[in-house]
Amino acid sequence: MIDWIRAQAGQHPRVAVGIGDDAALLRWPPPAGVLVTVDMLMEGTDFLLATAMPRQIGHKALAVNLSDIAAMGGRPVAAFLAVALPRHGGADLARGLFAGIQNLAMEFQVALAGGDTNTWDGPLVISITVLGEPVPPGPVLRSGAQPGDWILATGDYGGSLAGKHLDFVPRVREAIALREAADLHAMIDVSDGLAADLRHILAESRVGAVLFSESIPVSAAAVEMSRQDGRTPLEHALGDGEDFELVLTVAPATGRTLLASPPGDVRLTHIGEIVSGRDCQIRGADGKLSPLPDLGWKHRFEASSA
Amino acid sequence: MIDWIRAQAGQHPRVAVGIGDDAALLRWPPPAGVLVTVDMLMEGTDFLLATAMPRQIGHKALAVNLSDIAAMGGRPVAAFLAVALPRHGGADLARGLFAGIQNLAMEFQVALAGGDTNTWDGPLVISITVLGEPVPPGPVLRSGAQPGDWILATGDYGGSLAGKHLDFVPRVREAIALREAADLHAMIDVSDGLAADLRHILAESRVGAVLFSESIPVSAAAVEMSRQDGRTPLEHALGDGEDFELVLTVAPATGRTLLASPPGDVRLTHIGEIVSGRDCQIRGADGKLSPLPDLGWKHRFEASSA
Repeated sequence: MIDWIRAQAGQHPRVAVGIGDDAALLRWPPPAGVLVTVDMLMEGTDFLLATAMPRQIGHKALAVNLSDIAAMGGRPVAAFLAVALPRHGGADLARGLFAGIQNLAMEFQVALAGGDTNTWDGPLVISITVLGEPVPPGPVLRSGAQPGDWILATGDYGGSLAGKHLDFVPRVREAIALREAADLHAMIDVSDGLAADLRHILAESRVGAVLFSESIPVSAAAVEMSRQDGRTPLEHALGDGEDFELVLTVAPATGRTLLASPPGDVRLTHIGEIVSGRDCQIRGADGKLSPLPDLGWKHRFEASSA
Repeated sequence: MIDWIRAQAGQHPRVAVGIGDDAALLRWPPPAGVLVTVDMLMEGTDFLLATAMPRQIGHKALAVNLSDIAAMGGRPVAAFLAVALPRHGGADLARGLFAGIQNLAMEFQVALAGGDTNTWDGPLVISITVLGEPVPPGPVLRSGAQPGDWILATGDYGGSLAGKHLDFVPRVREAIALREAADLHAMIDVSDGLAADLRHILAESRVGAVLFSESIPVSAAAVEMSRQDGRTPLEHALGDGEDFELVLTVAPATGRTLLASPPGDVRLTHIGEIVSGRDCQIRGADGKLSPLPDLGWKHRFEASSA
């Protein structure tokens, strides 16, 4: 796999990459700083080899990282791949993974600049690090939300496990278009779930929020899942995660402008407002406020052995 | 673990790191480019939890990456940690890993700037990405060796699995001291084995080499292993790998100067010469040349299932 990386690394239009040495050298002096993100995906947790094609797994492994760079208003530049391949069938698996990674990297002009290929007796593990650069006027953090801000969301939510989590297109173009068009106060990509990731913005910004239940864009997959499991479509939309859409906050005037003429092809919905205080509530069809349920995925450990 | 990373990330003397967002922002415009390396270590392949302490595993996981940056004549700046922790006992394991990582990071003023913590039902996997910057006058590649060059080596070789592979100090200070003191033509760190990694320099530089068998610095551990397994100490020194010492090539005049007054505390040995052609030979005590055995570790796949 490293040979394939070497073959393509020289082709990036902006970043000269020296490959074949102990470390990659990116001849890339980014004046506004370097954005770095890393995500590790594991067989059985983030995908199942029984139901996902290797190409899809490769796509997802890169896409989740591009989504993280997008969430900061950044442009991804270079990717580094570390993989533990199962010993049996590892070569075929590597080819599929790489095809998925390469297609997405080319679509977004990301240099595959290095990596570390291993084989072992365990399940597939793939970890990708992506470097990027902030798009002017600069990076968007989670900490900038202000009371009164509109909360806007790209795309729709819920039911991602039905397929979208493997095939989603990271919102890189949308994030750059939004960043160049408007003063974004805060932004995040939705991986843990709409409710859980909104809470990250609220915590970092020390503010609260009211979501509008009737405005949350619910995906068709969430509606379909709801028929099968009895949870409401809204619960799926708020809690499922892996939507990899963007949630952002802007001043109301900015919000009105963005909704009236969205930059690029961005589909934006006004889903709520930032408020002072620390409460996170949802406003029902009847206008009543209730606490936003604590939905979404969390890291959990079993009890320690010590 | 991410909370610990956040707590320490603000403390780096040179790199301001914005943590707690989707990606880390390094406010660090490196004019000569960015060095990037990633290495993934897996339980059962790179360490055994039965015989290595978590602190040692954390140390090794960062140290192998610092060694890669050192091998290019670079100074490590920031590290990003992705880990898959076994569900049972993962919290304790994480604390130990992080202690080992943090100690080494502080020793070399490397910012722990971000990461991705996961739990799963599989064995421990830890992948670290390190960013660095070339030390003036610039990065050292594997491709610069020239016929007539002396081959110099730091430290000694063989038997690393007896313990050194977990506790080694990466040759960061030595690499920087050498880079600042002398015109280094080519350099590599020895992970696959002295013979195998020398071949990487030869392949990239399109040259050959003669090693001096009597000059190879053989470690005490290699001598001890030799008593037990019947392989010669020299075979261990040439083939064992994971020494994480530096092998470099310089013009003879430079080599004489470096040996006469080594910069810093570097212990250097003149172990051979670069020659034209592509042969890699070893000169015995009797002066006779023989082909260098094909020792050292290689990636291997089992037959594919397709």
